[in-house]
Amino acid sequence: MSLLYEGKAKRIFTTDQDDVLRVEYKDEVTAGNGAKKDHLEGKGRLNNLITSKIFQYLKDQGLESHFIEQLSDTEQLVKKVEIIPLEVVVRNIAAGSITKRLGFDKGHEFEQPLVEFFYKNDDLNDPLITDDHVKLLNLANDDEIATLKEAALGINQHLKELMAKMDLRIVDYKIEFGRTEDGQIILADEISPDTCRIWALDSDENFDKDVYREDRGSILDVYQAFLTKLEDVE
Amino acid sequence: MSLLYEGKAKRIFTTDQDDVLRVEYKDEVTAGNGAKKDHLEGKGRLNNLITSKIFQYLKDQGLESHFIEQLSDTEQLVKKVEIIPLEVVVRNIAAGSITKRLGFDKGHEFEQPLVEFFYKNDDLNDPLITDDHVKLLNLANDDEIATLKEAALGINQHLKELMAKMDLRIVDYKIEFGRTEDGQIILADEISPDTCRIWALDSDENFDKDVYREDRGSILDVYQAFLTKLEDVE
Repeated sequence: MSLLYEGKAKRIFTTDQDDVLRVEYKDEVTAGNGAKKDHLEGKGRLNNLITSKIFQYLKDQGLESHFIEQLSDTEQLVKKVEIIPLEVVVRNIAAGSITKRLGFDKGHEFEQPLVEFFYKNDDLNDPLITDDHVKLLNLANDDEIATLKEAALGINQHLKELMAKMDLRIVDYKIEFGRTEDGQIILADEISPDTCRIWALDSDENFDKDVYREDRGSILDVYQAFLTKLEDVE
Repeated sequence: MSLLYEGKAKRIFTTDQDDVLRVEYKDEVTAGNGAKKDHLEGKGRLNNLITSKIFQYLKDQGLESHFIEQLSDTEQLVKKVEIIPLEVVVRNIAAGSITKRLGFDKGHEFEQPLVEFFYKNDDLNDPLITDDHVKLLNLANDDEIATLKEAALGINQHLKELMAKMDLRIVDYKIEFGRTEDGQIILADEISPDTCRIWALDSDENFDKDVYREDRGSILDVYQAFLTKLEDVE
């Protein structure tokens, strides 16, 4: 039961099963690669409950992830995977970095969802990379890149349906994938308002971390409102 | 014979033929998207002579470009094309932005030449973009992206051979392509020490604009040395 890894928002522990890990969600919130940082009592609980519910929803749709089960308010059990150091970003609507980077207006709806890869590397500030860079950095081969994109778009379809049921829109989100011991690539990490940009159906009211990034109120209230909507989905 | 376009280093004029333009190379040198700027008498002549010679070399190898003929010391005639607003960068050895962006050591030799696309847009600072961005921005379709990459790598083979004959190494370079009226994509713009990073065979002595970027001497001397080597190639 030793600590395997501590990130900005989670701690990962070993368990008595070789291929199972325990994830503990922390009450830490950060933005801008750690430039902004706060401790918010209850935030870990919210992200754990939300991620557990979303992973369970995806599982019910037949979409496998590392998620096994929720253990407690702040903990879940997951399959052990080797995380691929890629932030896989899916964008349905332009917001955040892509508006500055490519000049799209905030709110511009993409005809097709856009998949982007960012290299998870704090020293380099998680740069955008191309498929050729992914191969050059030995992060994934051609087949795996195709798998990642296909999986990202499949998850997108499910998240769009889920959010529509909650009268919300999934603007964009970041997911991560891992390799199981037999080389299978599955969804890992978390899906929560920390890693998604979520808007109300008919406005750009945020149900996500932008509220924290832009100092626009309590994310505890906002994340709780999101969780309540999620719990109301049948 | 009216001025059609004026860029940082060239002026483009119409001619009495609809599908032919006249390029005049200016004595201007800039770096950092215009942040550093100087007038250097004779620089336009050097770049015109060098680009003309390189495009003629490629033509002799069967590789078509917009180049028709050198007109004078500072002018050339080219086919009229609609420039695709992409900087197509080919890298054989890590140097410049990729060392900061992805952490490669300067001088690291890539196993395969790397092709990158940057969106030519001064307001956005010419950002790196992926194939999906190229399509999203309507810059090129899938077939054209494949054509651009294939052409870039074909040109690379010829440039590597040419530079080897000059006891030099082509580290990286930026090329641009244009569409002719019938939709054919051909090499355009220029290939010169302004747009290439060129090193001595056994050191990182520059024969290129890094000398100007880094205030390490006279680029007129360096470009003239490059031209002399180029003229000595049989």
